[in-house]
Amino acid sequence: MSVRQVGIVGVGHTRFGRFEGPFVEMLSQAAVEALDDAGIRTGEGHGVDQVFVATMGASMLNRQSGVASALVDTLNLRPAMAETVENGPASGASAVKLGYMAIASGMCDVVLVVGGEMMRTVSGWEATDFVATMLHPEAEYNYGLTLPTFAGMFTRLYMEKYGVEEKDLAIVSVKDHQNAMHNPVAHIQLVPDLYSITEDEDARIINPYVAEPLHVYDVCPVSDGAAAVVLCAMEAAGRFRKKPVRIAGVGQATDTHVVAERAVSTDLLAVRLAAQRAYRMAGLKPADIDVAELHDAFTILEIAESEEVGFFPRGEGHLAARRGDTRVGGKIPINTSGGLKAKGHPLGATGVSQIVELVRQLRGEAGGRQVEGAKAGLAVNFGGFGNNVVATILAREE
Amino acid sequence: MSVRQVGIVGVGHTRFGRFEGPFVEMLSQAAVEALDDAGIRTGEGHGVDQVFVATMGASMLNRQSGVASALVDTLNLRPAMAETVENGPASGASAVKLGYMAIASGMCDVVLVVGGEMMRTVSGWEATDFVATMLHPEAEYNYGLTLPTFAGMFTRLYMEKYGVEEKDLAIVSVKDHQNAMHNPVAHIQLVPDLYSITEDEDARIINPYVAEPLHVYDVCPVSDGAAAVVLCAMEAAGRFRKKPVRIAGVGQATDTHVVAERAVSTDLLAVRLAAQRAYRMAGLKPADIDVAELHDAFTILEIAESEEVGFFPRGEGHLAARRGDTRVGGKIPINTSGGLKAKGHPLGATGVSQIVELVRQLRGEAGGRQVEGAKAGLAVNFGGFGNNVVATILAREE
Repeated sequence: MSVRQVGIVGVGHTRFGRFEGPFVEMLSQAAVEALDDAGIRTGEGHGVDQVFVATMGASMLNRQSGVASALVDTLNLRPAMAETVENGPASGASAVKLGYMAIASGMCDVVLVVGGEMMRTVSGWEATDFVATMLHPEAEYNYGLTLPTFAGMFTRLYMEKYGVEEKDLAIVSVKDHQNAMHNPVAHIQLVPDLYSITEDEDARIINPYVAEPLHVYDVCPVSDGAAAVVLCAMEAAGRFRKKPVRIAGVGQATDTHVVAERAVSTDLLAVRLAAQRAYRMAGLKPADIDVAELHDAFTILEIAESEEVGFFPRGEGHLAARRGDTRVGGKIPINTSGGLKAKGHPLGATGVSQIVELVRQLRGEAGGRQVEGAKAGLAVNFGGFGNNVVATILAREE
Repeated sequence: MSVRQVGIVGVGHTRFGRFEGPFVEMLSQAAVEALDDAGIRTGEGHGVDQVFVATMGASMLNRQSGVASALVDTLNLRPAMAETVENGPASGASAVKLGYMAIASGMCDVVLVVGGEMMRTVSGWEATDFVATMLHPEAEYNYGLTLPTFAGMFTRLYMEKYGVEEKDLAIVSVKDHQNAMHNPVAHIQLVPDLYSITEDEDARIINPYVAEPLHVYDVCPVSDGAAAVVLCAMEAAGRFRKKPVRIAGVGQATDTHVVAERAVSTDLLAVRLAAQRAYRMAGLKPADIDVAELHDAFTILEIAESEEVGFFPRGEGHLAARRGDTRVGGKIPINTSGGLKAKGHPLGATGVSQIVELVRQLRGEAGGRQVEGAKAGLAVNFGGFGNNVVATILAREE
């Protein structure tokens, strides 16, 4: 069966942090930038067949449903089809996957995908509780488990098994913050000094534990934000202003809902399977990837994922971070955008934001964080505590 | 471009009404019945590539996110891909559409679609408020508008313009309740007598106004429930127990989010466009349809939609109902399942439930409500107050 090729011809992104205004207005800002980047005019004859909105919290945080329909109208894209997609913190990549399917199926030629979350309307503990609603209701959530506590336990196991040290986590964090300084849409524009957050006598004040052994500088902030991409059939790409970046591979896998039921507690099986599926579809291997965005809601996840996707042998991700392999200019730069840690993590936006960063890298538009000559990029978007993971590979067309 | 054909080989449905137990358990019951109907065994080698869950209220009513991932694990369908889809009360048909796209795109061969809502965990007014979250937040919701009030205003306009009488609405209601008596999964198993609810001196007590001119018997109940279908590539249909019913057409359209902004207040433009698109894709016309499920959350909607989809001329749907054209045995039987009015309307379930009913009709499994010789069926699933509508056409394979 012939498979229809799909490309990305427009990207848009709000500054992550605090957004003042209605939720749909925030989505709209990212969408307008992406449509403009592609050269699409809204209104009569706009040519957009479908809009997907990725959000995890519109209902709980903003008490709004039917957001995709609302956005279509706000953008003057009627009568385009529209749906809202939810897959926890991996909602964004799921929406891009559905955009891929919509075009590959032949039902659509042009699809707008917008991810967004407005989380700062509630308090920090309410946001943490909201995120925890994706855990198992009876086996996990009702016992007060949250994502930071899960990540803390996972980190402890990883440290004991592979010799990871707290300082290795801080190295990842500092690298991400350095990258974010070159990304104007990143939430946190500040570089912590490694000594100050690990060894200095004030380190425990500047960088206290959130969920031991994870410190403040190991955990993503709570951010508002939206990101958008315009997808099109490659055969129709000539209509648009920008040269397309091709979606070469899409992989996704689920794992047990209850984390305690996994055979090996330090494995992220769904990350491995999702990446394998994406590599197979793209006809690429880990060594072919030039730049990667990995879901570092906690610094340990960047290390563990860098092993599961095949960049480094099992248990050696932290050694690679120590060596500087994951910096811009290193063997395989990871989270050039600043990652979730420094760019911010508005849940539904994150998966789309990762794709926006890869497109900018593959177009050569990444400014001070540009990976020279990047031809292929990988994104990993992580839902639940690894119970639903999406991997996406983009490739520059020559 | 060659388009891959998609069929339905399994259906499942809980009894609508009140479900005791966790939300995901309810989804699971419908899914297990559909998988069994198709002859699929879960666990190792299950062959299900993707699961879509349709729900509007999991977040607001059940405080749970990531429901699709949870369901995959509950059903032992790991590592199948999974997403939750939301499009207001049209979430169910949207999820079936995405299942169609997933297979037509070549990424999947077998997809499970489950729609469900657990609404009776909250009070009636809380349920009404929850449904109203799909209205425009600033222009409608904040003024206290709800779906019944919108439907009441729409009905008044329709009555004045086309001569519809309150008794015509009651005729639709009685017909739907009669059909539901033959549907074991319907919520309400009771047939009101037309005279008793319209002309009898106690009618105003038995059948009071909810939102004038709409009475209790014009408005769907608040129900829990789930429905499921198994989709497959037609070329793979031979693997399954049941002969496939083909998805011949899928159409969808959006309209203005703010209802007051529509050019003609009595038009349901998105219904018309969605149906036209579905007919075009299927290569069929209204006269080719043998049985239809139309979204009658309020009786007036069945009448208005029967005109917009082309069964009757504009303004004559109520005359057709008076003549009995829409009864089983009539010219075009509508809502043989009992419709939302009598079968119940668990929001996320409804669009999938409509497809289940059409499959049962086209297979000849509809018992006392069977439409003899039915070959093609149309479903209309209506989101917002008509701001996002999905039409689906199924066809029996000879």
